[in-house]
Amino acid sequence: MKAVTDDLREQVHAAARRARVAAHDLALATRERKDAALHEMAAALRARAGEVLEANAKDLEAGRAAGLSQGLLDRLALSEARVEGVARGLETVAGLADPVGEVLRGSILPNGLELKQVRVPMGVVGMVYEARPNVTVDAAGLALKSGNAALLRGSSSAEHSNTALVAILRDALETTGLPADAVQLLPCHDRASVTHLITARGLVDLVIPRGGAGLIDAVVRQATVPTIETGVGNVHVYVDASADLDMARRIVLNSKTRRVSVCNSAESLLVHAAVADEFVPRITDALLAEGVTVHGDERFAHDPRVRAATDDDWGTEYLSLDIAARVVDSIDEAIEHIAVHGSGHTEAIVTGDLAAARRFTARVDAAAVMVNASTAFTDGGEFGMGAEIGISTQKLHARGPMGLAELTSSKWVVWGDGHVRSNS
Amino acid sequence: MKAVTDDLREQVHAAARRARVAAHDLALATRERKDAALHEMAAALRARAGEVLEANAKDLEAGRAAGLSQGLLDRLALSEARVEGVARGLETVAGLADPVGEVLRGSILPNGLELKQVRVPMGVVGMVYEARPNVTVDAAGLALKSGNAALLRGSSSAEHSNTALVAILRDALETTGLPADAVQLLPCHDRASVTHLITARGLVDLVIPRGGAGLIDAVVRQATVPTIETGVGNVHVYVDASADLDMARRIVLNSKTRRVSVCNSAESLLVHAAVADEFVPRITDALLAEGVTVHGDERFAHDPRVRAATDDDWGTEYLSLDIAARVVDSIDEAIEHIAVHGSGHTEAIVTGDLAAARRFTARVDAAAVMVNASTAFTDGGEFGMGAEIGISTQKLHARGPMGLAELTSSKWVVWGDGHVRSNS
Repeated sequence: MKAVTDDLREQVHAAARRARVAAHDLALATRERKDAALHEMAAALRARAGEVLEANAKDLEAGRAAGLSQGLLDRLALSEARVEGVARGLETVAGLADPVGEVLRGSILPNGLELKQVRVPMGVVGMVYEARPNVTVDAAGLALKSGNAALLRGSSSAEHSNTALVAILRDALETTGLPADAVQLLPCHDRASVTHLITARGLVDLVIPRGGAGLIDAVVRQATVPTIETGVGNVHVYVDASADLDMARRIVLNSKTRRVSVCNSAESLLVHAAVADEFVPRITDALLAEGVTVHGDERFAHDPRVRAATDDDWGTEYLSLDIAARVVDSIDEAIEHIAVHGSGHTEAIVTGDLAAARRFTARVDAAAVMVNASTAFTDGGEFGMGAEIGISTQKLHARGPMGLAELTSSKWVVWGDGHVRSNS
Repeated sequence: MKAVTDDLREQVHAAARRARVAAHDLALATRERKDAALHEMAAALRARAGEVLEANAKDLEAGRAAGLSQGLLDRLALSEARVEGVARGLETVAGLADPVGEVLRGSILPNGLELKQVRVPMGVVGMVYEARPNVTVDAAGLALKSGNAALLRGSSSAEHSNTALVAILRDALETTGLPADAVQLLPCHDRASVTHLITARGLVDLVIPRGGAGLIDAVVRQATVPTIETGVGNVHVYVDASADLDMARRIVLNSKTRRVSVCNSAESLLVHAAVADEFVPRITDALLAEGVTVHGDERFAHDPRVRAATDDDWGTEYLSLDIAARVVDSIDEAIEHIAVHGSGHTEAIVTGDLAAARRFTARVDAAAVMVNASTAFTDGGEFGMGAEIGISTQKLHARGPMGLAELTSSKWVVWGDGHVRSNS
């Protein structure tokens, strides 16, 4: 068993070392060459869609045999249309500006030194993710465009699909003269491969876990390489005393029901007491009509169709047709509730009052704060980033949707004419 | 013993919770209020310098009794002039622009949503550092200006000095109506207080270790809160075939000897073979004349005054009057040597050739790359940041000198008029 573990460790480290070599080439690749590879990848995915769907059918069959839930099977399933979707995603990334080389700051110092801070790739970026095979292609494309080599650790349930996709991506890299090792799939049968990846300090520059709270927490706790926490969203909508209640109803419904399985969907509703008599029955009716189970405090739960909320409900990311609902006596009570229970992802206020909007946006500490807008807008595509590798809920390096810029670091380049520093 | 450990853990966590409360106030404090507090701190340090020096005398006495080296005693020692220096440092920070609220990006989306990304404080920032008590004041000042509460974990050798300084800073905060708990000193007698600080996930937003490689490595490996690695510098100067050799001599000497104990000082010299016959004896003479011990490869060490370098020398951060020296046959050999042995801090090339300068700056992966300038310029003050909390050698979040901006995170604020997202 020990020998097997050591083998796996060496396998992961060897992949990381090959990725490092590839990353050196990629860091110097021009935008022209990277975009050519992205277009070649897209074309190859279309041309070889049959291979991908065949591999995916094996994963689906194994998944059914293993008793995966219908939800997981849906996330695992590919189709002609989904393959076309990921191919188009690569072409979209090709159309985005190259983040590498962007000058972030620059000046000439009093002594004449010329200072520039430029974006450079991170180097080797690891991704740890669950079921969905399209993440394999999205992550590889974003990593490539930002000049990074990608180490992909998908789930074993998607092994055949991921293997087929990565083979196609690697062939496309070689066709365009870029190193195939810029995209590598790591062994997925043993959880230890995750451990080896996130402790490969010096070999791996960044690991992004994308999946459930358990996965993310385990990665962040064990990692010795830098990580970015993503995607856990206990998202609130607060309906203020001054809210337009029709607008509030639309925003609550859209935030909750547009897609319940994504991290920007609302999990809790807070309603100011001044509008509770009118709004609580209206929103309860509307939510129930959409099939949502309402877990309410006593002011919601006197309606027999509402379940009484327990303390756990306020901290739960349901990712289902459930919502926790509470009446608060003031905006500050809402802000305090969010400070205690929120996960720092997205928080929204519906209000007609400018002072309330300013108070809420200043005091709520989250990656995104919405005024009179659905929480569903927290998304790299919606924010105009063109694509997204995840949504960071941490404060270091990146916060909120992460696109190409968030996959880069920077370097100071200083030009002088023989400058030396005085002793003072 | 278990009870003592639990007590210490609770003590650190309680301090962090008080810091969180203070951080909420600080995040909303206007620049006017923060600058008033910084000026009050400076005035109080001047007025109560006697207290500080008395406390410092106790530390120095204890240090001498404990047999601390002269170098450590020097770093520990305060004087009227040094107290004046840190007071002026606070006034400089007051003069800098407030990073909080700075709009980093902003646009109106096609659907009319108004998007702004603004700088916000990190929250609670921990500092773990060694001997120098002036770091206590510098860190507190930078944290305050950037709207963060500071948890300071200095070394036990500076306990009396740090206690006196923090008491003065806290009094000044109270005088100006800001929460005293924005600056707190953590217990320093037990290494476990560091462990409790760096594992207080959810209570502490960022920890910056500042000190020797051992301290930094231990913090990064054990931490579950985000950390920024600082300051380990195995810094190289490469003298190219086309270098002006007088300029090269000045830059090598300045990089090595200006201050040997700082992280931006050069530790290795690489000389192109084409100029070795002329430059190796000249620079050897010059370094020896400054009292530097040269650890050379065979092409340096045929001079009997040069010690033969061992493999360890290439990776050593001496922080003393020592330098490793090697002749390379090409610029690519120099770049490769730096890739293997460098710590990603600062690397310099001396060259007259544009293609060589472009090749070196593009291919060398470090926080700062200098062309014809001393490595001593990698410094927040020199870079115009006004002050510096450390020099990051990691790629995530901050790279190179860290000033006020690097102590902030960001928040997306989105204003709409009832926007909901379509299902497509």
